[in-house]
Amino acid sequence: MLKSINHIGIAVKDLDASIETFKKIFGFESVHKEVVEKQKVSVASFKVGDVLVELTAPTDDSSPIAKFLAKKGEGIHHIAFQSDDVNNELDRLRGQDIKLINEEAVPGAHDMLIAFLHPKSTNSVLMEVCQEK
Amino acid sequence: MLKSINHIGIAVKDLDASIETFKKIFGFESVHKEVVEKQKVSVASFKVGDVLVELTAPTDDSSPIAKFLAKKGEGIHHIAFQSDDVNNELDRLRGQDIKLINEEAVPGAHDMLIAFLHPKSTNSVLMEVCQEK
Repeated sequence: MLKSINHIGIAVKDLDASIETFKKIFGFESVHKEVVEKQKVSVASFKVGDVLVELTAPTDDSSPIAKFLAKKGEGIHHIAFQSDDVNNELDRLRGQDIKLINEEAVPGAHDMLIAFLHPKSTNSVLMEVCQEK
Repeated sequence: MLKSINHIGIAVKDLDASIETFKKIFGFESVHKEVVEKQKVSVASFKVGDVLVELTAPTDDSSPIAKFLAKKGEGIHHIAFQSDDVNNELDRLRGQDIKLINEEAVPGAHDMLIAFLHPKSTNSVLMEVCQEK
């Protein structure tokens, strides 16, 4: 079962300019910055209630986020749902004929295990399932 | 200040088929259905942790959701952030040069007051601010 929303990923071109914009929108300053080498992105996370809003910019043209920006422009990239065990969840979803991008959990930001579901099975919403390691 | 995420709106073509899909994805059955006449949409809400995931389908071709579907297809439509007072928040945002779609709060689903910010000021993310009436 998907228990809660962990984060919402937003693709942005210029991370620092976007951080300043979102400080104004949210009305608070607190933000955590991190580089995820494996996915070639830098991420700025704002905690809004219990959910992280993650501004994500490519660090390299081969990053998946660079490809997303080239194709669709800035905007919401994905929603991440928290579970206790990603691999169990992937088994359950396979049993429901939900198509997966990752057949097994892989390492993500914030020291979590993650897997993406295929947008073809989710009304074109890119959805991630994640768990604390 | 925006305190928490109230809901995420997802534009879908066929509400009943999408409800069945999202029951499979989330792994639970509980869903609330509602028609919002003013916006010409029917809405199915799943509570995932403290956040509602709202599948939203047009009831009429003149609905804003019908226009979104025609232009962009299915997918995430907007994120709604909760505040204690939407109109105060709009004043604060105007002071930060954030462009607004609604200059004043209007009635929305779930008996709430809502206002949309302009995507030009929010990295192309359609953002709603809402409060309980």
